[in-house]
Amino acid sequence: MRILFVGDVYGKTGREMVDHYLPKLKSYYKPGVTIVNGENAAHGKGITQKIYKGLMSAGADAVTLGNHTWDNKEIFEFIDDAKHMVRPANYPQGLPGKGMTFLNKNGIEIAVINLQGRTFLPAIDCPFQTADKLIDEARKRTSFIFVDFHAETTSEKLAMGWYLDGRVSAVVGTHTHVPTADERILDNGTAYLTDVGMTGPYDGIIGVEREAVIRRFKTALPVRFESQKGRGQLSAVIIDIAPSSGKATAIKRRLINDDHPFYD
Amino acid sequence: MRILFVGDVYGKTGREMVDHYLPKLKSYYKPGVTIVNGENAAHGKGITQKIYKGLMSAGADAVTLGNHTWDNKEIFEFIDDAKHMVRPANYPQGLPGKGMTFLNKNGIEIAVINLQGRTFLPAIDCPFQTADKLIDEARKRTSFIFVDFHAETTSEKLAMGWYLDGRVSAVVGTHTHVPTADERILDNGTAYLTDVGMTGPYDGIIGVEREAVIRRFKTALPVRFESQKGRGQLSAVIIDIAPSSGKATAIKRRLINDDHPFYD
Amino acid sequence: MRILFVGDVYGKTGREMVDHYLPKLKSYYKPGVTIVNGENAAHGKGITQKIYKGLMSAGADAVTLGNHTWDNKEIFEFIDDAKHMVRPANYPQGLPGKGMTFLNKNGIEIAVINLQGRTFLPAIDCPFQTADKLIDEARKRTSFIFVDFHAETTSEKLAMGWYLDGRVSAVVGTHTHVPTADERILDNGTAYLTDVGMTGPYDGIIGVEREAVIRRFKTALPVRFESQKGRGQLSAVIIDIAPSSGKATAIKRRLINDDHPFYD
Amino acid sequence: MRILFVGDVYGKTGREMVDHYLPKLKSYYKPGVTIVNGENAAHGKGITQKIYKGLMSAGADAVTLGNHTWDNKEIFEFIDDAKHMVRPANYPQGLPGKGMTFLNKNGIEIAVINLQGRTFLPAIDCPFQTADKLIDEARKRTSFIFVDFHAETTSEKLAMGWYLDGRVSAVVGTHTHVPTADERILDNGTAYLTDVGMTGPYDGIIGVEREAVIRRFKTALPVRFESQKGRGQLSAVIIDIAPSSGKATAIKRRLINDDHPFYD
Ligand SMILES: [Fe+2]
Ligand SMILES: [Fe+2]
Ligand SMILES: [Fe+2]
Ligand SMILES: [Fe+2]
Ligand SMILES: [Fe+2]
Ligand SMILES: [Fe+2]
Ligand SMILES: [Fe+2]
Ligand SMILES: [Fe+2]
Repeated sequence: MRILFVGDVYGKTGREMVDHYLPKLKSYYKPGVTIVNGENAAHGKGITQKIYKGLMSAGADAVTLGNHTWDNKEIFEFIDDAKHMVRPANYPQGLPGKGMTFLNKNGIEIAVINLQGRTFLPAIDCPFQTADKLIDEARKRTSFIFVDFHAETTSEKLAMGWYLDGRVSAVVGTHTHVPTADERILDNGTAYLTDVGMTGPYDGIIGVEREAVIRRFKTALPVRFESQKGRGQLSAVIIDIAPSSGKATAIKRRLINDDHPFYD
Repeated sequence: MRILFVGDVYGKTGREMVDHYLPKLKSYYKPGVTIVNGENAAHGKGITQKIYKGLMSAGADAVTLGNHTWDNKEIFEFIDDAKHMVRPANYPQGLPGKGMTFLNKNGIEIAVINLQGRTFLPAIDCPFQTADKLIDEARKRTSFIFVDFHAETTSEKLAMGWYLDGRVSAVVGTHTHVPTADERILDNGTAYLTDVGMTGPYDGIIGVEREAVIRRFKTALPVRFESQKGRGQLSAVIIDIAPSSGKATAIKRRLINDDHPFYD
Repeated sequence: MRILFVGDVYGKTGREMVDHYLPKLKSYYKPGVTIVNGENAAHGKGITQKIYKGLMSAGADAVTLGNHTWDNKEIFEFIDDAKHMVRPANYPQGLPGKGMTFLNKNGIEIAVINLQGRTFLPAIDCPFQTADKLIDEARKRTSFIFVDFHAETTSEKLAMGWYLDGRVSAVVGTHTHVPTADERILDNGTAYLTDVGMTGPYDGIIGVEREAVIRRFKTALPVRFESQKGRGQLSAVIIDIAPSSGKATAIKRRLINDDHPFYD
Repeated sequence: MRILFVGDVYGKTGREMVDHYLPKLKSYYKPGVTIVNGENAAHGKGITQKIYKGLMSAGADAVTLGNHTWDNKEIFEFIDDAKHMVRPANYPQGLPGKGMTFLNKNGIEIAVINLQGRTFLPAIDCPFQTADKLIDEARKRTSFIFVDFHAETTSEKLAMGWYLDGRVSAVVGTHTHVPTADERILDNGTAYLTDVGMTGPYDGIIGVEREAVIRRFKTALPVRFESQKGRGQLSAVIIDIAPSSGKATAIKRRLINDDHPFYD
């Protein structure tokens, strides 16, 4: 069982990269399940129903989110209808949306969980305790469990990876928009990667027009952030899971941009 | 001209990795200059004179530091004597130590600069303005300028990379202890990598014993951090610079651990 | 029914102020219940069993704590035996200690609740949701409910005050160590004060030796904090509650130091 | 020489309080100089030229600002023409506006300085070092120096007070929007108050409509903040300075709201 996961899709450039390369990646890697993080898909801030449907049409089986989930107000109108879209499960009880969804592909059920860290991010419920609860629930149905842990610091992400090692098939991080090179299979069979990286502008700063970001750092003035124009990149990870056990057997990063072209 | 840079050396495990692999790496890559970040070399917190000398004996030509510079009190006794050790240049004026040093290797002079970010890190002077000043000074002597930018967030690091693009040979990040996979040559010839990653325990959480870190995230209790025991890793980057221009021509990551063994 | 509450007792100077003035204050104001925040009672960091007993002997009926609860390791040995000591209730489940205690004085039962904010403080459970649960529980027994909300920002404290208005007798803040002048009775009968202030050194910086704090701000170096020597202050608040309803009828600050001497 | 200082004017309610009470306060206290913090005067976010002129017409001799200085884009059009408006002096060099202005009243020259803290606020230049420079400059002309230190934490504000003690006439804090009750004359003659408090809605949360703030704390959702409707408050401080020395001789808080009516 192979999972293809695409990191934070950012704005129009990111969506175009998905439209163009996701079919090629699926054709090449033949994943059983394809998951896309879409928290920045709408101009860098949140997601709309049309964009969600576009990501699904482009080949995603499920969409995960993050701290930008709520930035586009349209989310409140469609989140409860978007069957295979998950937002961080550890937002307080009572909010719309859900943090876990189940996919059925070729007779296999896969749980997709979205969690969010708390270090340098909003104060919400504990992601570790929320993970415990969701995994208990998921394991009653399946041993294929995929976790997108949306967090800022390497320490919180590594802690989650080791904490869930042996209980889920994969823990991959999102949010920093830069892919890390530490993919590995942890001791008890969980595939781990600190951050998958972003799918969006290749020449900006985490997606944003770079002169604006530099100006903000240099002046501390409020600055309006627009997407960086120009060429794109796509960041993804491919994870193989043993059908017998739900344990990961391989994890491989994939980065597509002008310096790393895709040859199918 | 080739530079070999080794990321944050963490505790005894990190020092042993340096002792064992740095000679092999130097023999294999034949760098003109070797630089090592040693901010965590003494039990994860700072550096001592003995350890500084040990890193130099193992093959370093210069040592860079970071936010942990001041953690081991011994630093105040030897920092002004350690000719080729630099601490972040943007700590307030009047503190001991320096933020830039010049190396002379085979008739070429190289400036080594250490800067520190301010996002989620202590409030010190502006790293961007400090960079401007030091680079103006350095360029009077040489066009070979290497910058270790010790910072937490990907946005501040990318901002520094693009800000200095074309003015320095390389900007590489340290501090998060996880190597990133975004090495590239920016538009105007500066080699860039968001984070080189750590040289220390392979099975801990950014070097620390992992049960303690998980316990802290789950309980918010104060926890005493010890180094993770066991096997190690080494994270490095190799940068080639055109002798004629000081512009980078190549950048390559190198990770050594049980999953990525070194074959010389 | 009158409650006397004394703000964060800091180190030896703070304990001496309590020993000297608490009997005088009790004799003057004749409170039905006396509560003392002791989170900094042991050299500024946490509390010991001996100090807890000392505060009780000096006249406290209950002791509240805060983010420094766990700093003195001795806490783990006696917290579950200290019947009338409460630590912030919204630390994760499973930790020792409790966040609410009931006092019985002159036939009246009073619930004493300790909560901690999350803005610029450790990521723990939601203080608002925890408050809801504890107040539901407390109101089955009594309408006299006192809340010490230990938090950093004025916005989080004011939010808690208004959130609990009409459901508890009083919400007073602690943690910033500076008394605020905004005491009032909110619209639905809850007495409110953003911060009671500290009981400890009068000439330090929130209790700490001031040269060290200034040096840290100017240099960003790690600095060892000792208590400021010299004369003390005591910060307190007196709240009157209608026996019939549990609603507050009056709230009055009381500050004792060389500029505001106590005349009994 | 008497200085009347009014804390953060917030929105229309705050401006109305200034229009109504500032003449009464001036008539009652007869200050030589009147200074108003206007960082929240335009709907809680920044200031416009019309509002600046309105505050001056209402009786201010100078206006100070804070972290909200730049929120209303109109600031960039008039800041360099507003002779007696100061923004935090420790924003990076090159930004428009200034951090110190000199007033001449009845033959006495007074320096008005605005500084901003860095703890839990944007990373700008060091307020302590900037203070040193400005005070050196000011003392060549006058020994009457007033400092509005706009900062979040009590520790940074107390540190500034003690740091400048004896070198300026007064250090008063702004930004938290809650008045503190710790006014005093420090050992070497500087009047000090941690926070003057806000001039604006009496029933909101630091000026903001309170249901929105509570909702944000409970849900972590992005929330649009509007000013709280209804009655107002005014927070001020009156400081007396010895003409011979520039040292403070008295400091008194003044809070006006329905619970503390003004009787002239
Ligand atoms: Fe993102
Ligand atoms: Fe994110
Ligand atoms: Fe490090
Ligand atoms: Fe570091
Ligand atoms: Fe305290
Ligand atoms: Fe505290
Ligand atoms: Fe303000
Ligand atoms: Fe402010």
